[in-house]
Amino acid sequence: MNNNIKLKKIGKQTVKLDNPPKIIAAYSIVGPKEGEGPLGSYFDEILNDDLFGKESFEKAESEMLYTAITAAINRGKLKEEDIDYLFAGDLLNQLTSSSFAARELNIPFFGLYGACSTMSESLSIASMMIDGGFANYVVAATSSHFSAAERQFRFPLEYGSQRSPLAQWTVTGAGAMLLGKEGNFPEVTHVTTGVVKDYGVKDANNMGAAMAPAAVDTISMHFKDTGRTPDYYDVIVTGDLGKVGKEITGKLLLEYGYDIRSNYYDCGDMIFDDSIQNTDSGGSGCGCSAVVSTGHFYKKMIRKEIRSMLLISTGALMSTTSSLQGESIPGIAHAVAIEFKD
Amino acid sequence: MNNNIKLKKIGKQTVKLDNPPKIIAAYSIVGPKEGEGPLGSYFDEILNDDLFGKESFEKAESEMLYTAITAAINRGKLKEEDIDYLFAGDLLNQLTSSSFAARELNIPFFGLYGACSTMSESLSIASMMIDGGFANYVVAATSSHFSAAERQFRFPLEYGSQRSPLAQWTVTGAGAMLLGKEGNFPEVTHVTTGVVKDYGVKDANNMGAAMAPAAVDTISMHFKDTGRTPDYYDVIVTGDLGKVGKEITGKLLLEYGYDIRSNYYDCGDMIFDDSIQNTDSGGSGCGCSAVVSTGHFYKKMIRKEIRSMLLISTGALMSTTSSLQGESIPGIAHAVAIEFKD
Repeated sequence: MNNNIKLKKIGKQTVKLDNPPKIIAAYSIVGPKEGEGPLGSYFDEILNDDLFGKESFEKAESEMLYTAITAAINRGKLKEEDIDYLFAGDLLNQLTSSSFAARELNIPFFGLYGACSTMSESLSIASMMIDGGFANYVVAATSSHFSAAERQFRFPLEYGSQRSPLAQWTVTGAGAMLLGKEGNFPEVTHVTTGVVKDYGVKDANNMGAAMAPAAVDTISMHFKDTGRTPDYYDVIVTGDLGKVGKEITGKLLLEYGYDIRSNYYDCGDMIFDDSIQNTDSGGSGCGCSAVVSTGHFYKKMIRKEIRSMLLISTGALMSTTSSLQGESIPGIAHAVAIEFKD
Repeated sequence: MNNNIKLKKIGKQTVKLDNPPKIIAAYSIVGPKEGEGPLGSYFDEILNDDLFGKESFEKAESEMLYTAITAAINRGKLKEEDIDYLFAGDLLNQLTSSSFAARELNIPFFGLYGACSTMSESLSIASMMIDGGFANYVVAATSSHFSAAERQFRFPLEYGSQRSPLAQWTVTGAGAMLLGKEGNFPEVTHVTTGVVKDYGVKDANNMGAAMAPAAVDTISMHFKDTGRTPDYYDVIVTGDLGKVGKEITGKLLLEYGYDIRSNYYDCGDMIFDDSIQNTDSGGSGCGCSAVVSTGHFYKKMIRKEIRSMLLISTGALMSTTSSLQGESIPGIAHAVAIEFKD
């Protein structure tokens, strides 16, 4: 009998971490377009060329992810061999960006797939690994690349296909967070894990609408499980719902009794300026919430401009095959509460 | 400072679980060909038709996974709402078998990708979640489908392409394990997490050779970390190295000082009889180690025919894109020690 394990769950989908892991370093690397956007000054590294000196966009994406992981480790004054686990995933078929980045690292590796929810998915499991006593140091990371995603999910760029105004622009970028146990850093205090939600949206050019119900479900469940209200957090940040999905999410949450609109941000809505960058509904991709959380928001926490953040990365779980077979788009969202209690 | 967390790591890549989770139920479902193979009598459910009444092989695979998950929960006399987390993954692009199965379940879901290593990957994280106090009940599951995998990774079956004698046959099947804290069941005692290994094999029709170095690395690391020797286990079971990879693994481990050959099995080598089933080097796919571990070996443990197993599912982490771009095939292997101490 194992009754000596105290259950850390509070409510249906949330765990409260007894020994909140610290995010001791973070690193963000983005493509040229992201660097020219409104958050450009926050990113740690901006590429001049989205091929990053490689022969293919896919290889460039993997190199970006490797760069983010190793730079976060270096920034934490650690070495590769100090890291107990790497949790990473990406959008490419069979997760090759992550696997090929992990190939260059002698770190035990768990591959994750949550589509664009991967930043908070990896951060969730990484945090539980430290709190549960399985690791001293863990890296959570993810990436995406516009050109690699376009040709895999839609059309090769050379076709010059027209974009829908509801479409989002996959972010070229990678972000990594290094978690540890000690030091004066922002902490992961709660993890609310999402269930898959599908309200029947079939338009793969309107993923914000497909993901919004999942975001609404996870955010409302987080508040219900923790007893917190939206004003508890300085910022509530969804991953990549874009303009359309953000508006839907804000409105739908009102029906659950939560008004998040005054402190609600969406990484996809923030990263580009559509008026000059022609990005339609906003940014998307695993890299979107990865670089905005590690670049913009983590830095704001370290500078104590904000003290608490609920990060909810959101994923659309379709494939080109499932869409061609007439399936609707299931969504998922995982929430992580990050607080700087100092 | 969080020095009150006792680190459970022993050695570089292994954790010893203080409160070993119990595998309280398991379920396996396979296609007709697997049912006709040497292990047919062990599987819980054998399909007459590998479309499983669905319109596509992909939908059939997802339904098989859903069936395995719900049947394992039922067999444990639990309900969907009792399950704290589902950890699942599969081979299809963007993990649609798992996501679409999870869509039908109101269970917090983490998607994983480890190619054919997913059974032991999901079992590893699921076990740590229970041991760490984050869950009372967790399901670990995975699936694959020959016809869905062939058309995604190789050619549509209608082309009638010739197979290489080194090729493996993707298993049509899904397996699920239900983990909990109590009762007299086999326990997960140790988890050894793999690092990515790539020795330069580029032949996607010889994945056993590509994955063997990862298996050798993780197995030898498990023995080194735990101080155990091969004779500690009644059976040492790799996932889907097939005939070629199994032979390589047994030989390579001799160089590390470990002779596992007398109690070493490979799920891919066991599931088909090539002499009458024309499966060349053996079975592969996430479903291979899933159904052989849940069907054959778990049942042998419950019947006390074996008392201890080291399960090492093995994954080849390439995609069609990475192979077309000239990349070699990285491999990974995760080991889980399962012991029935009663």
